[in-house]
Amino acid sequence: MTARRVVATGTFDILHPGHLFYLEESKKLGDELFVIVARDANVKHKPHPIIPEDQRLSLVAALKPVDHAMLGDQTDMFLPIERIRPDIITIGFNQMFDEKTLSRQLEERGLTPRIVRIGKFPGDYLCSSRLVVQRIITKRGHDHHHVSENEREP
Amino acid sequence: MTARRVVATGTFDILHPGHLFYLEESKKLGDELFVIVARDANVKHKPHPIIPEDQRLSLVAALKPVDHAMLGDQTDMFLPIERIRPDIITIGFNQMFDEKTLSRQLEERGLTPRIVRIGKFPGDYLCSSRLVVQRIITKRGHDHHHVSENEREP
Repeated sequence: MTARRVVATGTFDILHPGHLFYLEESKKLGDELFVIVARDANVKHKPHPIIPEDQRLSLVAALKPVDHAMLGDQTDMFLPIERIRPDIITIGFNQMFDEKTLSRQLEERGLTPRIVRIGKFPGDYLCSSRLVVQRIITKRGHDHHHVSENEREP
Repeated sequence: MTARRVVATGTFDILHPGHLFYLEESKKLGDELFVIVARDANVKHKPHPIIPEDQRLSLVAALKPVDHAMLGDQTDMFLPIERIRPDIITIGFNQMFDEKTLSRQLEERGLTPRIVRIGKFPGDYLCSSRLVVQRIITKRGHDHHHVSENEREP
């Protein structure tokens, strides 16, 4: 039997336990997890990422459930999926794909993976890059002149 | 021969490739990497963490080089180190420990690990939680009323 390939996708702008849950649940569905990280230029449906694409990629690649991580294609989002030929594609609970449309688009390319929507992370963590951004602005926005490049932290 | 235990420590507020580099280099020095994640209440030398301690812990624990991750002790920072009895303790390039003082404090507890300072990450990534915060405030601070809890992203 060949290894079952799973593809997960996302921006992964500021990593949080919701991302981790999505990737762990995705990995459980197969043997090898491939993660396609959205290109900076292709994130148009929400604010531009804070963290540059290479950096988002390197952190995703360092997570235990992830076997292979790569940046998406800037002009054809289906190209990496054609190369991987996954058995399963997972969608995050809040990703705005319509499963039927996606399925049809993939079929036009000769791909018939099972599409699985992963549920919401059950914890009460700060599970949204956007909410992290909001918290930063609320907590630190008033005194950002105190932020200095000389006071780095590991 | 017993496994060489390495201890790394930090706040790991918003994960970036500098954290990852520190942990990967730490792991290379031994067989098992233990990471002690600073408690919210104990972070006093810089702004309070954005991300709650449980969440910082769960992300650090999910990184490939990390074998064991735990929260620090709220009253005695040396307690987890006494339990682990590491062969090596690593310090990040910008962590404000004085190696000699630390070494003496550990010796008073009967611990004589080698203390190794890990160099600076060589890339030009956004390698400081503080700089990430600064970028967020610069890029998004002016329109944070657009940030909504309903528009989550994975």
